[in-house]
Amino acid sequence: MCTLEKRGDLFHLTLTGDDEHRLHPDTIATILSLLDQVKSESTRGSVLITTAHGKFFSNGFDLAWAQSAGSGAIGRMHQMVESFKPVVAALFELPMPTIAALNGHAAASGLIFALSHDYVYMRKDRGVLYMSEVDIGLPVPDYFSALVVAKIGTSIARRELLLSGKKLKGEEAVALGIVDSAAHDSAEGVVEATVSLGESLAAKKWSGEVYATIRKSLYPELCKMLDLTAKTPNL
Amino acid sequence: MCTLEKRGDLFHLTLTGDDEHRLHPDTIATILSLLDQVKSESTRGSVLITTAHGKFFSNGFDLAWAQSAGSGAIGRMHQMVESFKPVVAALFELPMPTIAALNGHAAASGLIFALSHDYVYMRKDRGVLYMSEVDIGLPVPDYFSALVVAKIGTSIARRELLLSGKKLKGEEAVALGIVDSAAHDSAEGVVEATVSLGESLAAKKWSGEVYATIRKSLYPELCKMLDLTAKTPNL
Amino acid sequence: MCTLEKRGDLFHLTLTGDDEHRLHPDTIATILSLLDQVKSESTRGSVLITTAHGKFFSNGFDLAWAQSAGSGAIGRMHQMVESFKPVVAALFELPMPTIAALNGHAAASGLIFALSHDYVYMRKDRGVLYMSEVDIGLPVPDYFSALVVAKIGTSIARRELLLSGKKLKGEEAVALGIVDSAAHDSAEGVVEATVSLGESLAAKKWSGEVYATIRKSLYPELCKMLDLTAKTPNL
Repeated sequence: MCTLEKRGDLFHLTLTGDDEHRLHPDTIATILSLLDQVKSESTRGSVLITTAHGKFFSNGFDLAWAQSAGSGAIGRMHQMVESFKPVVAALFELPMPTIAALNGHAAASGLIFALSHDYVYMRKDRGVLYMSEVDIGLPVPDYFSALVVAKIGTSIARRELLLSGKKLKGEEAVALGIVDSAAHDSAEGVVEATVSLGESLAAKKWSGEVYATIRKSLYPELCKMLDLTAKTPNL
Repeated sequence: MCTLEKRGDLFHLTLTGDDEHRLHPDTIATILSLLDQVKSESTRGSVLITTAHGKFFSNGFDLAWAQSAGSGAIGRMHQMVESFKPVVAALFELPMPTIAALNGHAAASGLIFALSHDYVYMRKDRGVLYMSEVDIGLPVPDYFSALVVAKIGTSIARRELLLSGKKLKGEEAVALGIVDSAAHDSAEGVVEATVSLGESLAAKKWSGEVYATIRKSLYPELCKMLDLTAKTPNL
Repeated sequence: MCTLEKRGDLFHLTLTGDDEHRLHPDTIATILSLLDQVKSESTRGSVLITTAHGKFFSNGFDLAWAQSAGSGAIGRMHQMVESFKPVVAALFELPMPTIAALNGHAAASGLIFALSHDYVYMRKDRGVLYMSEVDIGLPVPDYFSALVVAKIGTSIARRELLLSGKKLKGEEAVALGIVDSAAHDSAEGVVEATVSLGESLAAKKWSGEVYATIRKSLYPELCKMLDLTAKTPNL
C-alpha cells in the first residue's frame, strides 16, 4: 500500500495501487513508520517527495471501514483522527524539505496530508482539492483547522476550502495560494517537476535540524496543537 | 430602521431608510434581535443576506448621539462598542452561510459589521470601505482589530485599512483580498448577485450546526475574544 | 555610522558609509538611541524614513565580530540578538508612520530591521532580500519568526523567505507581498518616493499615540513577544 525508495538524496514515499488511498489505520501506521525511517536515514541534502499511483493522491480517511462498525463508527473515526495526528507532526519536524507531488485527487485528510508538506505541486489537467466535511456533515478535527489557518494565508481561500464544498482545480488552487504550481499535464510531469525542485534543494546541503527548527518557528499555533516545540533554542 | 424578510431559504436583513444607518444602541438591539430570530427559524439550506437602502450600508456608530452627551460621550461610545460585540458574535455562530451585499459606503463599525459575514460583495461604481479611527483619533476596539487580523490575510491590506485613512473602492478592496467581488453597477445588481450565490449555497442543504462549527474553527483568536467556543467537538 | 536629520515633518535615519552596515552592538545602541530621540521629538505629522548609503541597506549582525571571539562567539551572537530586540520594539511603538527606503541589499537582521517599518520600498534594479540563516545553519531568533509571521501573509511567501535560501529581487518581493513597491531605478528614486509618501502621511496630522495603538493591535502575538502592550485602552 505504501513504499519508500531512496534515489540519491531524494526519498520517494509512494502510496501504491489504483485505489483511492483511503487512510485506514494500517495505512496511517505504515506511513508513520516510513517517515520514521526517512528521519533516521536523513543526511545533509535529504529531501522527501510524497506521491501516489492512479487517479487519487488520497481521498481521506477510510469512512467505509468506520461505518461498517455500526455503532462503533464514531470510535473508529476518532481512532483515525488521533492516529493521523502524529503523521502531520512527523512531517512538520522532518529534518529536510518536503514536497507533495499530487498525481490526482486529494480530499479531506488526504488533502491535509498534502498540505503538511513544504511544497505542493498539482497537475493542470486532473485532480481536485476538496474538503468534504461540510458536505457530509462532519466537523473538521481541530488540528486540520489549525493547519489550514497556518498554511493558507487568506480568509477567502480558507472559506473556499472549508466552507464552500468546492472542488478546487489546479489553477484555482494556485490563484488562492493553496498550492505552488499546477503546470503539468500528467502525473509523470508533476513528479519530474518535484524531482527537479528536490535536487535543487538537496544541492544546498542544509542542516536538517536547523531547517526543521526554522520551519516549526513559522507555525507556532499549529505546533502547540501537535505537541511540537516551536521555540527556537537560544543561540 | 431594520427589517427581516424570508423568501424561500434566504433571510433578508435590511437596514431601511436613506440615512447613514448609524449604529445607535437601538439599531444594534434590533439587529441582534433579528439575528436571534434568524437563528431560531433556521433550517437546512438557510442563508442570510444583509443589505441596506440608500447610499450607505452603514457609516458606523452614532457618534453624534455620543457627543451630544457632553461629558458622557465616552460612556456612550463604550456602550456602543460593548453592545455591538454580541452582533459580531451572533454572525460568527449563525448556523448558515452569511452574505453582505454592500449597497454603498461601509465605515468603521459599519465595515466591521460587513466583514463579519462569510461573503462580502460590493458595487463597482459606488461605495467605499473606510476605517475612520486613525483620522478622527479614536482607538480601534480590540475585537475590531482581532476581526481584521482574522479576516484580512496580509499585513499590507490590514495597514491600508486601519493605518492609512484610505477610502477603498471596490476594485482596490478586491485586489487587497478584503471583499469577494465588486463587479456590479447598482445596488440591485449587488443584491441579485448575492441572491444567486445564496441560492447555490442553500441548495447544498448543509447542517447549519456543522457549518458554524467549521467557521468558528477558522477564527480561534477572534472567537476567544468574542467568548465563542471555537473548539471542534470530538467526533 | 548612523545619522538623524529632521526636514519638516520627516525624520531621516541613515546608516552612513559604503560598508555592509553590519549590526554590531555599537550600531544597534546608536540606532536605539536615535529612535528614542525621534520619539521624544515627535509631533502630529511626524514620519520616520530609514535608509542607508552605498550598496547595502544592512547585511545583518556583525558575524565577523562574533567569530573573532573564538569560544565567545555564541555569547556575542546572543548579545546582538538580545540588544536588537528593543530596536524592533521601538519601531512598533513609535508614534508615527515609519518607512524603510531600501537603497540596496537587506539580509538577516538587516531585513528584519526593514520589515519592522510600516512601509517598505525597494529598488527595481538592485538589492535583494535574503534570510541567510538556513544557508549558514543558524536558527532564526524567535522574534524574527514572529515578525515574519505577523508581517507576511502567506505560508508560501514565508517559506520563500526563511526556508529556501533565495535572494528575492524587488519584483518577486512585491509579488509575494513582502514589500510595497520596487519601481525605482536608483537609491535616490526610492528615497524620493518615500519622501513623497511620507509627506502625504504627514499631512494627515494624526495623533501619534492613536496611530501606535492601532498598529500594535494588528500584531498581538509579536507584541507579546516584544513585551509591548497590544491591548486597546477602553474608550
